[in-house]
Amino acid sequence: MLAAHGTAVVSDALDLAGIDGQLWGPRRLSGHGPVVGPAFTVRFERVEPGTPAAAADFLDDVPSGAVVVLAAGSATCTVWGDILAEVALARGVAGTVIDGLCRDIDGIREFDYSLWAHGAFMRSGKNRLRMAAVQQAVELGRGEESRTVRPGDIICADGSGVTVVPAASLAEVAASVDRIAAMEQQVLEEVRAGGRLRDARKRHGYNLAARQPTGNHA
Amino acid sequence: MLAAHGTAVVSDALDLAGIDGQLWGPRRLSGHGPVVGPAFTVRFERVEPGTPAAAADFLDDVPSGAVVVLAAGSATCTVWGDILAEVALARGVAGTVIDGLCRDIDGIREFDYSLWAHGAFMRSGKNRLRMAAVQQAVELGRGEESRTVRPGDIICADGSGVTVVPAASLAEVAASVDRIAAMEQQVLEEVRAGGRLRDARKRHGYNLAARQPTGNHA
Amino acid sequence: MLAAHGTAVVSDALDLAGIDGQLWGPRRLSGHGPVVGPAFTVRFERVEPGTPAAAADFLDDVPSGAVVVLAAGSATCTVWGDILAEVALARGVAGTVIDGLCRDIDGIREFDYSLWAHGAFMRSGKNRLRMAAVQQAVELGRGEESRTVRPGDIICADGSGVTVVPAASLAEVAASVDRIAAMEQQVLEEVRAGGRLRDARKRHGYNLAARQPTGNHA
Repeated sequence: MLAAHGTAVVSDALDLAGIDGQLWGPRRLSGHGPVVGPAFTVRFERVEPGTPAAAADFLDDVPSGAVVVLAAGSATCTVWGDILAEVALARGVAGTVIDGLCRDIDGIREFDYSLWAHGAFMRSGKNRLRMAAVQQAVELGRGEESRTVRPGDIICADGSGVTVVPAASLAEVAASVDRIAAMEQQVLEEVRAGGRLRDARKRHGYNLAARQPTGNHA
Repeated sequence: MLAAHGTAVVSDALDLAGIDGQLWGPRRLSGHGPVVGPAFTVRFERVEPGTPAAAADFLDDVPSGAVVVLAAGSATCTVWGDILAEVALARGVAGTVIDGLCRDIDGIREFDYSLWAHGAFMRSGKNRLRMAAVQQAVELGRGEESRTVRPGDIICADGSGVTVVPAASLAEVAASVDRIAAMEQQVLEEVRAGGRLRDARKRHGYNLAARQPTGNHA
Repeated sequence: MLAAHGTAVVSDALDLAGIDGQLWGPRRLSGHGPVVGPAFTVRFERVEPGTPAAAADFLDDVPSGAVVVLAAGSATCTVWGDILAEVALARGVAGTVIDGLCRDIDGIREFDYSLWAHGAFMRSGKNRLRMAAVQQAVELGRGEESRTVRPGDIICADGSGVTVVPAASLAEVAASVDRIAAMEQQVLEEVRAGGRLRDARKRHGYNLAARQPTGNHA
């Protein structure tokens, strides 16, 4: 189960599979513990000043257990707030990942709703952004750190950030996650028993648990 | 009362009035809950290396209930610390907003003093910055996000950031805040009772609660 | 004792000595209270994509009481995690300062292990970075904010960030720290007793406690 481990092990499994699945940008602003669920994607685009654009009404269509993924680009206005968080929580939505900003962060933290975003601000997206696509592939991040998230890809997120496991690679990644987590547990038990870290790592093949990455995100 | 609501509703009311009153940059580093009060403004400017410049002595003149607003530009040294916070707290100052940095953040958090800044650091502003103006209009932020704050403008701030309501627009903005907050409460009660979010928003005119912004801060 | 005071007083003492010892970049992500200890330095460098590079095995050599200082440049992968933190904590290591990123921040926070870094992420440094030097002088930060840390330099860090006292200047800086802290205590007692801040500062020579800085880090 991906949910039992954090993003570090998932990231190592993605590295092993040669998949660039780490999302640069969104950091945890609310909630606690690892969150795992299929992505429900929404893309926003800017509107010209003076163009009326209604607030995005997609939340009624998000299934329980999903993670809402909002692609708002580099907008300096917000696409999520406390009413949405309260409704999402009541309907069993697992969390929200925003490549962009959220508002009402005090209320969202009171709910302990799981949220990742670039930051909190208060300026509304209303009449500044419009919903351009729902449940289609979205691009998050920019430049070298640009990543595509497709509806149904598995989002794994915790305090260290957000990873994306492509739906087609889930079985492969999940198997690696189990192997890596078991190996790390063995290393940990050996050093807890007084062993040297470098000996324990060598004995349990710590450095074999990752292949050379295909890109160079050093 | 502006104090009863957070910055999101104030920001929407500013949008309705066509006022760009959201401050980009300062984020909450200490304290909790919404803070509202008239701005007491101080502007700093850099001094040439080698020029002695005393610490800014303005705090004795700040009235109870005011929010100290410090314009320190892009300096990488600090203009606020724990002695100032302790004195401010004892005198009933409502909080401090810094377009710049503060030091002693551990002590300030122990006081739970309300503070917004770009971040915490420890390098003193002494002999690096000098107080250039007190209780005059100050510019906060840069470029498209530059905003003027005048003494007596009303600062409304919470965990999502800082907004500024020009003193001359207070009555208009406060009336909108009450209307918007009441409308949002109705939407919330309807979805809490099991209604769909998009129906509730439509019924209560959610999207009418903002006019087209004059600028394009998307 | 440097440990009894925070980084603000240490920074003022460094200013008095004409030493640029403030580290721009790493902010506290875990732990609480001031941390003081001699630096144990490690430098990382990028490897070409496709080059295997083992995880850095240096922790067995870090003495109790030391602060691990990791120079990872602008890499967007991580050089510290929860296994390292657990081992470090068990061996009495005082904390870790990273010019770079760490992973597993949730677990590290559960340990309350003292850590400063640019941020948390999850992408492994394995096969992206290699350990290039241990216990040699390292450069942290960039441009005007670049600083050299040598093995045995004293790291003083708290919630406001990280300062470095060169080993050769420790006696001079420590003496200034004591003087400055005593002076600030007098100012504080006078304002607590109802005095005006500007009078108390003048009486106790607050503005004499710093000389003109040699650089201009305003």
